[in-house]
Amino acid sequence: MLRPKLLSSISSINNFSRFRSMSFQKEIHSIKTIETIPSFRSWRRQFMKQDKQVAFVPTMGSLHEGHLKLVKLASEHCPIVVVSIFVNPAQFAPNEDLDKYPRTLSHDLELLRSLNCVDTVFLPKVKDIYPSGIPLEIEKQKGTFVEVKGKSHQLEGTTRPSFFRGVSTVVAKLFNIVQPDHVFFGQKDAQQCIVIRSLISDLHFPIEMHVGPTKREHDGLAMSSRNQYLTPEMRNYAITLYNALTTIKDELDKGKRNREILLSKGYEIVEEATQKVKEKNLGFELKLDYLSIADPTTLDELQEIEEGKGAIISGALFVGRTRVLDNLLFNCTL
Amino acid sequence: MLRPKLLSSISSINNFSRFRSMSFQKEIHSIKTIETIPSFRSWRRQFMKQDKQVAFVPTMGSLHEGHLKLVKLASEHCPIVVVSIFVNPAQFAPNEDLDKYPRTLSHDLELLRSLNCVDTVFLPKVKDIYPSGIPLEIEKQKGTFVEVKGKSHQLEGTTRPSFFRGVSTVVAKLFNIVQPDHVFFGQKDAQQCIVIRSLISDLHFPIEMHVGPTKREHDGLAMSSRNQYLTPEMRNYAITLYNALTTIKDELDKGKRNREILLSKGYEIVEEATQKVKEKNLGFELKLDYLSIADPTTLDELQEIEEGKGAIISGALFVGRTRVLDNLLFNCTL
Repeated sequence: MLRPKLLSSISSINNFSRFRSMSFQKEIHSIKTIETIPSFRSWRRQFMKQDKQVAFVPTMGSLHEGHLKLVKLASEHCPIVVVSIFVNPAQFAPNEDLDKYPRTLSHDLELLRSLNCVDTVFLPKVKDIYPSGIPLEIEKQKGTFVEVKGKSHQLEGTTRPSFFRGVSTVVAKLFNIVQPDHVFFGQKDAQQCIVIRSLISDLHFPIEMHVGPTKREHDGLAMSSRNQYLTPEMRNYAITLYNALTTIKDELDKGKRNREILLSKGYEIVEEATQKVKEKNLGFELKLDYLSIADPTTLDELQEIEEGKGAIISGALFVGRTRVLDNLLFNCTL
Repeated sequence: MLRPKLLSSISSINNFSRFRSMSFQKEIHSIKTIETIPSFRSWRRQFMKQDKQVAFVPTMGSLHEGHLKLVKLASEHCPIVVVSIFVNPAQFAPNEDLDKYPRTLSHDLELLRSLNCVDTVFLPKVKDIYPSGIPLEIEKQKGTFVEVKGKSHQLEGTTRPSFFRGVSTVVAKLFNIVQPDHVFFGQKDAQQCIVIRSLISDLHFPIEMHVGPTKREHDGLAMSSRNQYLTPEMRNYAITLYNALTTIKDELDKGKRNREILLSKGYEIVEEATQKVKEKNLGFELKLDYLSIADPTTLDELQEIEEGKGAIISGALFVGRTRVLDNLLFNCTL
């Protein structure tokens, strides 16, 4: 219902939507944003009384088609859709890119508005999410932290040891504020999906988790907010990781099961591209962080890949200073 | 409303209560217990739709008057009262008393029933609360853990380094299952109150916390489930800690403000009792773990006690192998 009397008094772009019960479509005139936790809580409360399900897509903004696809998926599951945009300091190490992480709020809101299915965009402040403060140096941090032991130290956790502690902590906080019934994460961050699934089940959050597929550019490069760090030359070589993962996946599909043989196919591709970049003297380097073929439940590296169990084929590649991350699934889901 | 048809088919002692909206009194015929998380969730759901507030008192059972007072306090705040009984393995170190911790379920249920204000007693199983398992050796633990950094390592945390990690983790789990609006803890465990208050505020649980006063025996000994470990001789000397704390508090009340002078008064009392036990050759020892005068917000030890800030005067004393814990508050609340 439109409430024209209020329109002028609200500064942010607001969405006065009406929920059409069957189609999950909304009359969108603009998009509602909420910046404080108390305001969000009081907005959220109405749907509890009405017993209306809420879907939640947490993001760090700088939205691309991958995010938008997740939001659409969310709107197919629930009548109410909440997207949060919050660049979470706790998941950045002091040497990482917190300061330069792309922040494109008005464009993000425009994109979300165009979807016609978002009820509220939650835009919390760092000081509200972390009332005890959040220095990047882990030994200086005070306050409550959440850690998923056994699934946070390997793969991404090797290069980024407190990354998943930061992710798990902010996700727990956002869950308690948004109180969603369904939550949506992208397959692009496969280990994150596994960590969050454990977090939900171990801490008994009353939330159902969904994983949306990785959205890719025409050549296969996984969409990522960090792709905008890449120069055109770097962009050409960023696809190397996807090529390596695809080759391993193809070999698995053909029936190959030996870890060393499978990985060697991937290493070859990376090595070839690395040499080419070096020879052409392009002013940056390719540097493989890791290639992995891991158990989709435990994230343990697999020696022999079993048909029934499946595997996550994943890797990370530094293209200059930009870390490209990707994965493919063999006979499993996240 | 009594539903006699069902009575015979339910094995646990059940409570078919009717809520009288104004007085928060219930017609209690027996007491309802729920053992599984899905059953609890479906029972809980009705009160969300009805927008009825739920009060929660988490316990480890072996209930005494201190617990009962908390439950009564809870019933004064909310129309619906939930008590949980769960001996939490994660807060016991391998050398501690998990196995012999007193378990007195039928007596506990009888006590709760006599209060006529408890709607449900939640009795979860270890395997349900810890789906990833919970070995006592911390380095073997897997799954999600919650830690309140900056308030968990001192005082009780010095002697019991993973105690508050265990407490914080189980409390976060229980909060997500019970989804209370109000939660009640006893002042007896002062540091626990401070840790849980941080947990609630840092993780943004939509829960209001209340602290109930310490219930004491006629001579002042704080009631505790572990007091039953004490032989009559030990019981006589268990009061030593309370005497030391009271003396420090009296000195503060008289205007004394110097930490060393205040603590020395407490140490004297402990020393005297320790000597007496030794001389009488009673077959056990008194051994002071610590005496503390700490800031009620940060738990830092105070050098000078400021009137405005107040202090937590606390301590722990081993009486034989039983650890007696107590505290008094000076010009502050928890």
